[in-house]
Amino acid sequence: MRNIRIGMIGCGVVGQGIMRLLKENAASIEGRLGGKIEVKRIVARSKRDRGPFVPPDLVSYDAGPLLSDPDIDIVVEVMGGVQPAYEHLKRALEAGKSVVTANKALLAARGHELIELSESRGADLYFEAAVAGGVPVIRVLREAFASDRITAVRGIINGTSNYILSRMTESGLDFASALKEAQEKGYAEADPTLDVGGGDAAHKLSILAMLAYGAKLELAQISTDGIDQVSATDIAFARRFGYVIKPLAVARALADGSLDLRVHPALVSQKNVLASVNGALNAVYIEGAAVGPCLLSGLGAGAMPTAVSVVSDIVDVGRNLLSEAGGRVPQRAFRADSVKVAKVQPMSEHSCRFYLRFAVLDRSGVLGKLASSLGKHNVSIEQMVQEGHHQTQEPVSVVMLTHPAREGDVRAALSEIASLDIVAEPARALRIEPT
Amino acid sequence: MRNIRIGMIGCGVVGQGIMRLLKENAASIEGRLGGKIEVKRIVARSKRDRGPFVPPDLVSYDAGPLLSDPDIDIVVEVMGGVQPAYEHLKRALEAGKSVVTANKALLAARGHELIELSESRGADLYFEAAVAGGVPVIRVLREAFASDRITAVRGIINGTSNYILSRMTESGLDFASALKEAQEKGYAEADPTLDVGGGDAAHKLSILAMLAYGAKLELAQISTDGIDQVSATDIAFARRFGYVIKPLAVARALADGSLDLRVHPALVSQKNVLASVNGALNAVYIEGAAVGPCLLSGLGAGAMPTAVSVVSDIVDVGRNLLSEAGGRVPQRAFRADSVKVAKVQPMSEHSCRFYLRFAVLDRSGVLGKLASSLGKHNVSIEQMVQEGHHQTQEPVSVVMLTHPAREGDVRAALSEIASLDIVAEPARALRIEPT
Repeated sequence: MRNIRIGMIGCGVVGQGIMRLLKENAASIEGRLGGKIEVKRIVARSKRDRGPFVPPDLVSYDAGPLLSDPDIDIVVEVMGGVQPAYEHLKRALEAGKSVVTANKALLAARGHELIELSESRGADLYFEAAVAGGVPVIRVLREAFASDRITAVRGIINGTSNYILSRMTESGLDFASALKEAQEKGYAEADPTLDVGGGDAAHKLSILAMLAYGAKLELAQISTDGIDQVSATDIAFARRFGYVIKPLAVARALADGSLDLRVHPALVSQKNVLASVNGALNAVYIEGAAVGPCLLSGLGAGAMPTAVSVVSDIVDVGRNLLSEAGGRVPQRAFRADSVKVAKVQPMSEHSCRFYLRFAVLDRSGVLGKLASSLGKHNVSIEQMVQEGHHQTQEPVSVVMLTHPAREGDVRAALSEIASLDIVAEPARALRIEPT
Repeated sequence: MRNIRIGMIGCGVVGQGIMRLLKENAASIEGRLGGKIEVKRIVARSKRDRGPFVPPDLVSYDAGPLLSDPDIDIVVEVMGGVQPAYEHLKRALEAGKSVVTANKALLAARGHELIELSESRGADLYFEAAVAGGVPVIRVLREAFASDRITAVRGIINGTSNYILSRMTESGLDFASALKEAQEKGYAEADPTLDVGGGDAAHKLSILAMLAYGAKLELAQISTDGIDQVSATDIAFARRFGYVIKPLAVARALADGSLDLRVHPALVSQKNVLASVNGALNAVYIEGAAVGPCLLSGLGAGAMPTAVSVVSDIVDVGRNLLSEAGGRVPQRAFRADSVKVAKVQPMSEHSCRFYLRFAVLDRSGVLGKLASSLGKHNVSIEQMVQEGHHQTQEPVSVVMLTHPAREGDVRAALSEIASLDIVAEPARALRIEPT
């Protein structure tokens, strides 16, 4: 039986993890694949020591020879970024090579093109590692629940944000200190914008929505709020009401055929399993019309969990190649243009319960004014606490949980309240995710 | 493109759910498979109404014609029980047909034979629905983590037991009342022995151990304790120490190459995610050397979740058939004789922390006697509470959590304590699962 021959583009920590797994688990992988995996070429950015599992003689610095090598069956891409990864993978697929990639930014930007190309060439395009690292959410959507109609995907898919909010919750740290700690521990990058601003989660959510709903999306269609708006004060108030604040990404199918798509910090009941998903863990709830809710949780990042997903994809694609069954999983069903182009619900139409925190002057009639503005816009109050120092002139905090309300109505009420003379600071509003 | 033709043996609620999914999701399934699924024959036990999704003209009462029909590609077995299911599936595989089954008892008893037979004929044998209903744990072990070395599988895989313990925990019900409620709600059968005695979980654990470790097991090798030994008193004491009692199944790889295999109720920290898995939910933690811990949780039973797993298996096997790639996933690696025959650690060698509850007479020196017997057998006490009515002659409860101890030592100490004249009732011992 012939070997499955790999060319790998990118050789950072994930690439080194892939080489380590291929070496350490060679015997069991060979048994499970039914053949040997041979790494023929590795393309890296620059010359440096890559540890004991990367033979230096395999490494070069130009992707050209790898992409034009007719002996390479699978191109494994772990370099990241949209360009030049897109050009490389396009060339590989055009040459009929199969592709395994961990590149969420690329898939979010040009996944539909690559899937279409792979299908037209009968090549495989696998990308388990692109979402939630070692958590096999792609395989579950594409295979385990292929028989069901997915109604919602809801989860924690940015480990950096989850780490920061978890630390703020556990230790009362403020956002800046928790971010600093995450950076020191290697959970956050020097420029954390993509993680804490929600962009990374939006990339991943667009991939999940593609698989769950065949939805073709522009990233701009995903309402994206970062966790940098969450304060230790909000976390403490949320706890008093029985909630934890979590960085959520949600893609729900609505009754009218449109999608509810959003990335934002949300209040989640302490009784919900997502509330126990802490630190750098990721978790995704998939709800199917028939299968009900299914939770997947594990390490969403890190060299070895990501490498496990990449190498398992290599094994699966290798099984297809050894059976001459490239393209055995039709991708068309997961692409938009054959199914539907996503219609996304405007956030103003979104309805949920809200957490609202006001900083107001401690005068009589203040609560009446807040309640009256909210009521005028059909926002009704379910629970409330007020807290402050009556001896001082400091503003007092009024925190309310609302009944379900249209987001447009909530925004209108908050805008009206902002102009009242009793308001000391802009109000904070956070969505409460139903459980 | 040709149709994938199915023969289904068994047509109870799961069979009817399969027919419903095939009808309601026909268009999306066709897209994801790349072809149509056609049900040619259904074999049922007796004549009765099977609802709107089962065409009566497909139903007969003899498996012979189905098994000898050369046009049938996949035999779907949802009749349950070891015989005659084994004979039917053996005949199907011998004829080169692929098989999808939900039959855990059959797989536990004769899974290795069927896998060997399927492999020798180049046919597929898929069984996602056999463990944890709609939770895709089989696919994750066989495919998503094919690149990793599994170190532990630990979970709640009997929904009936979990429902009963959850109700006892939430509402303080005793075992008999919670069982009665479960029976009234359809979560427990009239004869609940297989569920509450742990046998059903042992069946499933043997299948998981086969996939995770290539382990060939006799059911008798799995230490199996039911939840009927758990009292409302134990649940209440466990809570005071920060624990919940859960029905666990565990298969761990030990450093010496043997397996730690057991089914029993255990104390789990309230902070562990498994503590939040309540009611009829199932959950499985899979730990890989590289991927770390991964949790899968969802509905472990019920017609529709089980049907989702069966139909997704049909789709996957159908993809293989349409690509002429039957047998593309080598099964040999997951069978014992090519890998290793399981060596199982005797429970006397098992080491963990223990919950011990004694009912003793309220006399001076009692604690000293208990502690002395435990200490003599190397069992050291970590925490203790004593509770009783000093006014009455009733025995008092003494509950201890131990440091990690060998189970053989604990049994020896308890046996010695049982002979002391201060003991009013046999001691209760429950294992504490580390988290």
